Amino acid sequence: MPIYNAPLKDMDFILNDVFNADEFWQSNENLAHIDMATANAILEEMAKFSKNVILDLNRTADEEGGAQFSNGVVTTPTGFKDAFKQFSEGGWVGLGASEEWGGQNMPKMLTVLADEMIWSTNPSFMLYPLLTVGAGMAINDRASQEQKETYLPKFYTGEWSGTMCLTEPHSGTDLGIIKTKAEPNEDGSFNITGTKIFITSGEHDLCENIIHLVLAKTPNAPAGSRGISLFIVPKFHVNADGSVGERNAVSAGSIEHKMGIKGSATCVMNFDGAKGYIVGKENEGLAAMFVMMNYERLSMGIQGIGAAEFAYQNAAQYATDRLQGRSATGVKSPEKPADSILVHGDVRRMLLNVRANNEASRAFAVYVGQQLDITKYSTDEAAVKKANDRVALLTPIAKAYLTDTALQATLEAQMCFGGHGYIREWGMEQCIRDLRISQIYEGTNGVQAIDLIGRKTTKCNGAFIAEYITEIRDFAATMADSKVKSAALQVSDEVEALTQFIVEQSKTTPDFSSSVAVDYLHAVGLLSFVYMFARISKAAAAKPESFFQNKLVLADFYVEKVLPDLAARAQRIKAGSELIMQLSEEYFTAQS
Amino acid sequence: MPIYNAPLKDMDFILNDVFNADEFWQSNENLAHIDMATANAILEEMAKFSKNVILDLNRTADEEGGAQFSNGVVTTPTGFKDAFKQFSEGGWVGLGASEEWGGQNMPKMLTVLADEMIWSTNPSFMLYPLLTVGAGMAINDRASQEQKETYLPKFYTGEWSGTMCLTEPHSGTDLGIIKTKAEPNEDGSFNITGTKIFITSGEHDLCENIIHLVLAKTPNAPAGSRGISLFIVPKFHVNADGSVGERNAVSAGSIEHKMGIKGSATCVMNFDGAKGYIVGKENEGLAAMFVMMNYERLSMGIQGIGAAEFAYQNAAQYATDRLQGRSATGVKSPEKPADSILVHGDVRRMLLNVRANNEASRAFAVYVGQQLDITKYSTDEAAVKKANDRVALLTPIAKAYLTDTALQATLEAQMCFGGHGYIREWGMEQCIRDLRISQIYEGTNGVQAIDLIGRKTTKCNGAFIAEYITEIRDFAATMADSKVKSAALQVSDEVEALTQFIVEQSKTTPDFSSSVAVDYLHAVGLLSFVYMFARISKAAAAKPESFFQNKLVLADFYVEKVLPDLAARAQRIKAGSELIMQLSEEYFTAQS
Repeated sequence: MPIYNAPLKDMDFILNDVFNADEFWQSNENLAHIDMATANAILEEMAKFSKNVILDLNRTADEEGGAQFSNGVVTTPTGFKDAFKQFSEGGWVGLGASEEWGGQNMPKMLTVLADEMIWSTNPSFMLYPLLTVGAGMAINDRASQEQKETYLPKFYTGEWSGTMCLTEPHSGTDLGIIKTKAEPNEDGSFNITGTKIFITSGEHDLCENIIHLVLAKTPNAPAGSRGISLFIVPKFHVNADGSVGERNAVSAGSIEHKMGIKGSATCVMNFDGAKGYIVGKENEGLAAMFVMMNYERLSMGIQGIGAAEFAYQNAAQYATDRLQGRSATGVKSPEKPADSILVHGDVRRMLLNVRANNEASRAFAVYVGQQLDITKYSTDEAAVKKANDRVALLTPIAKAYLTDTALQATLEAQMCFGGHGYIREWGMEQCIRDLRISQIYEGTNGVQAIDLIGRKTTKCNGAFIAEYITEIRDFAATMADSKVKSAALQVSDEVEALTQFIVEQSKTTPDFSSSVAVDYLHAVGLLSFVYMFARISKAAAAKPESFFQNKLVLADFYVEKVLPDLAARAQRIKAGSELIMQLSEEYFTAQS
Repeated sequence: MPIYNAPLKDMDFILNDVFNADEFWQSNENLAHIDMATANAILEEMAKFSKNVILDLNRTADEEGGAQFSNGVVTTPTGFKDAFKQFSEGGWVGLGASEEWGGQNMPKMLTVLADEMIWSTNPSFMLYPLLTVGAGMAINDRASQEQKETYLPKFYTGEWSGTMCLTEPHSGTDLGIIKTKAEPNEDGSFNITGTKIFITSGEHDLCENIIHLVLAKTPNAPAGSRGISLFIVPKFHVNADGSVGERNAVSAGSIEHKMGIKGSATCVMNFDGAKGYIVGKENEGLAAMFVMMNYERLSMGIQGIGAAEFAYQNAAQYATDRLQGRSATGVKSPEKPADSILVHGDVRRMLLNVRANNEASRAFAVYVGQQLDITKYSTDEAAVKKANDRVALLTPIAKAYLTDTALQATLEAQMCFGGHGYIREWGMEQCIRDLRISQIYEGTNGVQAIDLIGRKTTKCNGAFIAEYITEIRDFAATMADSKVKSAALQVSDEVEALTQFIVEQSKTTPDFSSSVAVDYLHAVGLLSFVYMFARISKAAAAKPESFFQNKLVLADFYVEKVLPDLAARAQRIKAGSELIMQLSEEYFTAQS
């Protein structure tokens, strides 16, 4: 069975040494309740839960074929119910939620690290509370006081769960064309009718009630995305005293059979005149959804880190144990029939690629978490505005770049196993299958890239990225000379130039930005990771222990072995969109 | 259900226009029995078989959970038995085998294209005849006349099948440490004892007998790979009259549960003093195996093409049908609720990446097939030597580069489906799972890269690649000026310089070549593909029809959008091995 040990020392290093978390928390009265001792205690608890409770359930859930569906009822895999009970009782559902509703009010900087452990050990399990957290965020932000009182406390005790019902069979990225209808009743409620697909946790047996947040169109709503409203549709009506009442007219029609995350129930949900309650104002549903999107999309990036960390640990252990061949510089273990495959440069190259990705990704998640914490907790308006811009810019990186690189990382980790990587019992192939969805859901990575290059870059003439680059240059200026410092400055210059080129090209060539979006996303991702290695290096440089000094080696490895991808990305961006757009639509499907 | 239509027009183009197959065949008396009309007729038959017989069985086999094992007996998925009967009766098992033994003696240039269709539609099915073909090749090359007469005709009627038993639990890449023993009997036979794992088609119900080719060590054999012999071990003994006799002491202990190719039975084989017959001379078993390795490894590359072609066709169709959002240049289909997603540059970018990969890969497979045909059929010694060198150089590219790029291609194709790509019924996720093994088996792609940079490059001081580059430069010299001609010349210069650098570095730094091997493999792969696009472009340039002219656009796309990867590879190679090798072995597993 696969192994996992939470990287607690690295997490402490990133919070404490790289981002001076204590100072940041203590300087803000809204975060003064948290310090490193508390943070580490929380992480240690989650390390135990993830390793002892949910790790083994991940393999068994997959082998069982995942969640089961029969006559509208979903049964979660063996052990999930008990694990979710422990999870709820531990207060984990509301770890980042407001104390007012029973949450623990922990900063995102910390919760990203706790989340990583669950993503490492059981991504299917993670999706059950994750959707509740997201639904809770939308309700907290936009719903009435009465709605908050009704639903939020039940979410954070784990008694009820939440969903987000957006996608329809014909409408995914393009939500403007949804068909689900909301007909007003005289009592102010609505009757919701329509079919939603790909609804994570739409039906399951972990909670006594499921609260669906549903996008639908009221009669005479404006066409397109400006005519979408958000509704609460409970699976069971809620009685006046808060108890669970009669069944509402919403049910699961089936669950999807998927490549991975089989333990997570992905449901087709049928709303047959189900009673719903509007959240916020009519036609402002999409805006309400976007409130939680930045948080959710960061979660997908953390799914990537979790998977790649799990993959790394198992691959490094396998490579240590597997004896095969001899070192190119002569026999290293003469007492054994062969040397460990760690003597081979190619195996080390793969492991270092994965490890460099993980350490940069984790730092980046904490960095973005800190920006989100500023937007939520800071009382300094200028700081909030700046953090909001930064979050807007970096959310597509957090979602798409972190999952793109994580998939490649898990593939390289699997390769370290040779043939055994392809065998289910080792858990590597499941890790890849489970992770793959992170690049697809919550907006495909292509859509994220288009968001980055469009709304976040060309729309503001590159202002967001310019501010980010200024921060990176300012930081580099505080560093002693090093390979990573030079690289951070050089990549800043290159991304700045690429951005200017893109802004100009987009003015005259409407298809340009979509055509080069993914390459630009990766360019900004590389910039972000070299910035993280700059911060890591500065924090580690003065400390003589090998734990810290090895981080400097890994940073150099990143600069020399990963960063060269920027040269390829830049060339592709400069090649533009002409060759991409000139072929006819018929070309693509013509028999060849 | 997924679609598939064999790319017959492209196949004809490559054989006829790009490689002048008729001229090549007719100029060689050993190949004069084949012409384009016959070739196309064969390909049309295979197009029907692959689409009508095995395509649908691919999905059902996966849904059934693949081959089933019970008490030593393997049951293949529904429909495989009947399909294999049709396949055998069609003469497909022996398509490339000698007429002397019942084969059809078709050149590799052609069989690679027929094989591609099976790999596209049912890779699990393909593995049953593939191993027979490989075993037949080794027997044909090294076995006694009596052994050939006993086994080969039965292989090509499909009555019996073959396996290759190399890997053991502790011994994969490093075959020098195998433990399976061969004890001589007085009658010249041997008793074979040991356990082999990952044995494709080791046990199944498609044939009346299974002939295992087994690597084992005789008593007092030299240590390491020089002490390995090859044995024929039939599942059932063969009576003097050629009929099937008593059961031999070999049986399947279990089958593996895998990421994909679930319809293919991957067996643990236990040899308990099974009677075996030596093939060729004692201690020359590994050499006998290598006879067929070049052919088999090319097959893995064709698995890549097959998967990526299947993925392309389905993704292009989905992208054409899926309406979502509007074109950046204004509404394209005002009569519809949204435009086809083919209007988006990012979707086109992905599809063109896949298509460019497939067209270059297919041309490359035919090119390598032609080189193999020269080694087999030519009577010109100098030409045979040159082709042998070329095959030696390009086999790692055919195996590893074609499967590396194919995996990325299938991932991009899956992404075109958005969420639907993750759902099993669309077949895209199975395509990826099935393909993934191609990078791992027959020597992992890392091992292939080390073979390329070591035995094929530094060992001969770069002579093989120098000859290849000379051919490319000579070909480019025959072309009119174009983007792809310039690129072919430029990449030739760059790969030449990289090779010289590698040859020099390897002299003083033993770990260097393994550390940069995969990057060098990709550099030579990019060179090979730009060479293929040069040949494609030259063949297409003079023809005005859009089918041909579009190939020029695709070639330019390749140069501008794919080839930039070379810049990154070159930088990584120049960064060398120092940062990779300096960290201690303990670093990799130390708790972090």
